[in-house]
Amino acid sequence: MTAAIAPVAVPLAKAYRLLNHGPVTLVSSAHGDRSNVMAASWAMALDFDPAKVAVVVDKSTLTRQLIEASGEFALNIPSRRIAPETLKVGTLSGKDGDKWAAAGLESFPAERITAPLVAGCVGWLECRIIPEPHNQQRYDLFLAEVVAAWADPRVFSDGHWHFGDDMLRTIHYVAGGSFFITGPAFDVGTE
Amino acid sequence: MTAAIAPVAVPLAKAYRLLNHGPVTLVSSAHGDRSNVMAASWAMALDFDPAKVAVVVDKSTLTRQLIEASGEFALNIPSRRIAPETLKVGTLSGKDGDKWAAAGLESFPAERITAPLVAGCVGWLECRIIPEPHNQQRYDLFLAEVVAAWADPRVFSDGHWHFGDDMLRTIHYVAGGSFFITGPAFDVGTE
Repeated sequence: MTAAIAPVAVPLAKAYRLLNHGPVTLVSSAHGDRSNVMAASWAMALDFDPAKVAVVVDKSTLTRQLIEASGEFALNIPSRRIAPETLKVGTLSGKDGDKWAAAGLESFPAERITAPLVAGCVGWLECRIIPEPHNQQRYDLFLAEVVAAWADPRVFSDGHWHFGDDMLRTIHYVAGGSFFITGPAFDVGTE
Repeated sequence: MTAAIAPVAVPLAKAYRLLNHGPVTLVSSAHGDRSNVMAASWAMALDFDPAKVAVVVDKSTLTRQLIEASGEFALNIPSRRIAPETLKVGTLSGKDGDKWAAAGLESFPAERITAPLVAGCVGWLECRIIPEPHNQQRYDLFLAEVVAAWADPRVFSDGHWHFGDDMLRTIHYVAGGSFFITGPAFDVGTE
């Protein structure tokens, strides 16, 4: 495993908390001897238990070919530290050559799926597609069940994010190379 | 119009930028003489042009009844200032009485739909449901076309967020009354 720190398992019923605050994601995929990684802001939780997600993957992408062929993908949640790589995989195409090398990203094996996970991320959701051909064809929309989830214990444990170092914070994409860092946490009392 | 400041129209092709960074949303709805507002973190952009969104609305909610009856809803994007009200409408049910009053929220008329918009928000997307009964019934998932979009010009103009005052920043929900503020912006050069 080439991740800087060993990911810790997240119970599936808490997997939605990795996505709930709307960070940008990296979609990793593999089929046969090809694998790829792309950026996706249009990803969200869809259900708690069993944990499900929804993500939009355009027809023109290599990722689309790989996830339709394999029925699997992972949603990886990058930190501020790999924002440059995140932007690169959002602008290059895997059809033009190995995007992992071109973007400077490394992968490590997932547990339940064949798609690899992205090293340097702070959260990972291993997903198996729930086949819905109409959604896929008409809206580029993929629904999937989360079959395993992981987090970097420096920033997520016991079902909660606890960011310190700004470089390990999750990020939110706007457009044109502009991101926001996930900012300070605050609690609202439930009077 | 009871909004603190007059919303400015956002071109529909740029409406996704209101949602792209994954803020929590308030779903407002109306049918006949009833209207309601609920919180939803599971909302995302689905397409650029025509602009579309996806949102998860549970079967148990009054909002679900109102949007299925009317075919319309609005996604309102609250600021830090109304985080307490956002949490309240996420915990109360409209079935128990007028949630607007109970949560201390006010509304103002939308332009293209009958559902009202939530005053004090910083972005608004007026949406018409694209009927997909299978998604609605099986996944509580609603797809919709954005028919009008608005933003508070103090924090969003020319297709970009430009936050200053922390109280006008958008917010991201985690769980149990915990939120993150949208943090500092940064740009990654596209070398």
